[in-house]
Amino acid sequence: MSKTLDLNCDMGESYGAWPMGNDAAVLPLVSSANIACGFHGGDPGTMRKTVALALDNGVALGAHPSLPDLGGFGRRVMQISPQEAYDMVVYQVGALAGVAASQGARLHHVKAHGALYNMAAKDAALARAICTAVRDVDHELIVYGLAGSAWITEARKLDLSCAQEVFADRSYQDDGSLTPRTQPGAMITDVDQAVAQVLQMVQQDSVTSVSGKTVMLTADTLCIHGDQPNALPFASAIRQALQAAGIVITPP
Amino acid sequence: MSKTLDLNCDMGESYGAWPMGNDAAVLPLVSSANIACGFHGGDPGTMRKTVALALDNGVALGAHPSLPDLGGFGRRVMQISPQEAYDMVVYQVGALAGVAASQGARLHHVKAHGALYNMAAKDAALARAICTAVRDVDHELIVYGLAGSAWITEARKLDLSCAQEVFADRSYQDDGSLTPRTQPGAMITDVDQAVAQVLQMVQQDSVTSVSGKTVMLTADTLCIHGDQPNALPFASAIRQALQAAGIVITPP
Amino acid sequence: MSKTLDLNCDMGESYGAWPMGNDAAVLPLVSSANIACGFHGGDPGTMRKTVALALDNGVALGAHPSLPDLGGFGRRVMQISPQEAYDMVVYQVGALAGVAASQGARLHHVKAHGALYNMAAKDAALARAICTAVRDVDHELIVYGLAGSAWITEARKLDLSCAQEVFADRSYQDDGSLTPRTQPGAMITDVDQAVAQVLQMVQQDSVTSVSGKTVMLTADTLCIHGDQPNALPFASAIRQALQAAGIVITPP
Amino acid sequence: MSKTLDLNCDMGESYGAWPMGNDAAVLPLVSSANIACGFHGGDPGTMRKTVALALDNGVALGAHPSLPDLGGFGRRVMQISPQEAYDMVVYQVGALAGVAASQGARLHHVKAHGALYNMAAKDAALARAICTAVRDVDHELIVYGLAGSAWITEARKLDLSCAQEVFADRSYQDDGSLTPRTQPGAMITDVDQAVAQVLQMVQQDSVTSVSGKTVMLTADTLCIHGDQPNALPFASAIRQALQAAGIVITPP
Repeated sequence: MSKTLDLNCDMGESYGAWPMGNDAAVLPLVSSANIACGFHGGDPGTMRKTVALALDNGVALGAHPSLPDLGGFGRRVMQISPQEAYDMVVYQVGALAGVAASQGARLHHVKAHGALYNMAAKDAALARAICTAVRDVDHELIVYGLAGSAWITEARKLDLSCAQEVFADRSYQDDGSLTPRTQPGAMITDVDQAVAQVLQMVQQDSVTSVSGKTVMLTADTLCIHGDQPNALPFASAIRQALQAAGIVITPP
Repeated sequence: MSKTLDLNCDMGESYGAWPMGNDAAVLPLVSSANIACGFHGGDPGTMRKTVALALDNGVALGAHPSLPDLGGFGRRVMQISPQEAYDMVVYQVGALAGVAASQGARLHHVKAHGALYNMAAKDAALARAICTAVRDVDHELIVYGLAGSAWITEARKLDLSCAQEVFADRSYQDDGSLTPRTQPGAMITDVDQAVAQVLQMVQQDSVTSVSGKTVMLTADTLCIHGDQPNALPFASAIRQALQAAGIVITPP
Repeated sequence: MSKTLDLNCDMGESYGAWPMGNDAAVLPLVSSANIACGFHGGDPGTMRKTVALALDNGVALGAHPSLPDLGGFGRRVMQISPQEAYDMVVYQVGALAGVAASQGARLHHVKAHGALYNMAAKDAALARAICTAVRDVDHELIVYGLAGSAWITEARKLDLSCAQEVFADRSYQDDGSLTPRTQPGAMITDVDQAVAQVLQMVQQDSVTSVSGKTVMLTADTLCIHGDQPNALPFASAIRQALQAAGIVITPP
Repeated sequence: MSKTLDLNCDMGESYGAWPMGNDAAVLPLVSSANIACGFHGGDPGTMRKTVALALDNGVALGAHPSLPDLGGFGRRVMQISPQEAYDMVVYQVGALAGVAASQGARLHHVKAHGALYNMAAKDAALARAICTAVRDVDHELIVYGLAGSAWITEARKLDLSCAQEVFADRSYQDDGSLTPRTQPGAMITDVDQAVAQVLQMVQQDSVTSVSGKTVMLTADTLCIHGDQPNALPFASAIRQALQAAGIVITPP
């Protein structure tokens, strides 16, 4: 049986008069889209257009809920209670599900955005609250979360399907966590190195840490960036390498 | 066969630290609730609590979408395009549907709030856009709209169920429209007069205009206010009079 | 004595993670800047950077207050009361005055944004409320308003300095108003025609209407657009023609 | 020379259609008002009315800037940079200064709200950024900060006047910090005990900690709450006790 990998990308992060990203160009390269739901980007009109564009490209629809922080693009940590996280996620997933329904489609997954994603990766109570919200709105939705993190543990406890997310452009620590961006070597900018890391992840269920240790991990979905310089050539190279290796690119 | 009437009330219009309204007290008096969806009131936590309270009281759940105007409580006319209206309504109905789903419930109806309600009552293109949004998210939802207005015409064109809304505390003009609040006699503050108007509407499908003319109209649902002085005794009196007259209070 | 003209441009309309406009490129071409104050664009950090950039370029600082409509970029008409307009303008002018003060500078003028500008041009009560707000915050501020409109009449009644604004890229009607954008010939896209219109305005205090009539008007300040295709060459051509004609480009 | 103490209270925290607090009742009891500036409460119209009410009562006007969190009432910790804190404070102080100017008045002080106040009490870089913002907008403004905290240290480094704030309804630790609300004995609900604590603070420059230790501290201003049950009788009792003891209630 052939190996598979999902390529996911954040989308629909324009807001009103302000465009952002390069959705039309990146959509042909990915298999699933994380669509902003209005709290960090993505006004209702942008959500409609982004869902339509994703459907045109045959890409799986995911909600990309955020902390309520338009001015900070959802990147600032906010101390919210698990109940607040639950409520925010129910609201945003529901809103995007409504947009999808209006186009005859259904949501496939949920991936939290920015600070909310990072906070829940380390905070089991928060991860559990968010996973519970996803389950309560639609128990068939798949939660995307950082491979090996609290996201995965908590989703499983709730019998919720989850996809372990890995990164091509980030290096890993000996414990399987991402090297913090503040440390040297956190980012992988060399395409060949990135491709090698992804292939190892998919084919060998492991990654080589910055210290050279082989760390086991599961790679269900790979985070693709669409809006940075070189993002598209980078993503194309990874996609081609995966296909050349016989790995099927498909949503979980 | 007995006559029926729905009693609806706006609810869940608190926001964050700011309470509003008297939801727990008014819920036993009504049969359907119009729940704010975040654009004029109703943060995600309030939406959760309001849906739970409505379900506890066996009251039908409705979305109460608004123009995006927290500072003006959705009461200020904004010139939006039909497309913008469509998108706002899809988003807000979806969000509340998500909250309802998280509690194992479904939405029953949609009633636009404030300026959006009034604008669409007179603007067929806007009414059509909003009704289309409702249909596209869930074609089983019932649209509540001002009796005899563009709401009703457009909902029917789309084969959407609709409920004609009437008022106990407003007087009517010869053409069946509400007397503008800026004119004398617009408001009916006498309970007996209000009760008489409601009974005539339900039993005779008509209302007596301010000039004394009998105007035909259909009364499917009556708007109950919960947050004004004397609102609860007023609502109770109407409810008792309806029950005494053998009229069944039930959602459409 | 030589003729003078101010060239003004809207600026600082980025918001959070979303950039907008081309401020650094257009600043050398203009003599005054209308800086967004947070209600349609322009978060506090953007305001700080825009004020610094304007000061670096020796350009006069103006507040660019808007209706509270981030999602609609302040372009949607909202029915607000004169009191609400007054309050919004006091708040926004004060906020930008604070930013200016923090850099040792003072505001020079106020130009309303988008729908608020257009609404007040035709609505004397609204224009008066906004002019009163400007006067009450700082009576030395100059109000920029559409030449010949309610802006000018009301500012004068309040003994407030005002600058009559004209357009190079819009044609005029026989009554001195702008041709609505919905009509053919509303926009002037030919640079030579635009330059000729501006020179006539400054040198002869008149404009030739679309029907060929000579209409008297006063040109104190010319609106320059910075963010459209060809905006910069268009602005440069006008600037060069003005200088070649001996007209001094300077704030009012 | 007689001892003095300022009594300050948060005010103007209504927002749009949502009233909050009891400003008219508490104003006669205090000598300075901390007025919300729109980020956690206090829309522009509320700011105008609150400034007018404070001026009517002869109370000193202060800005009460907050994190940008309407939904959380500024009570949720957000990880913001010192630069972001600086920008937010400049904006909000400027806005309220504009409102004050429009009524012929000037601001007297700045007291940060909620989470921002608590964060800066412990974070010197944040306190310094906010104090710098205050100084840059108007170096005559007085910063109110928790007695003995980073607020005071940083304000002094910047040669900014500051007022040390103490609490009647909170107990203190041996190091002079407030007992966290999560611990027993954090709140003082007995009026006599509260009065005794305040008199000791003003007359002896000390407070008795929960463990019984005498801790030196400076009391320039006392925080009065206006919106809790028993808040007004509590505040009245303190005011009367201060006056009976010959302590003059006056802004710093």
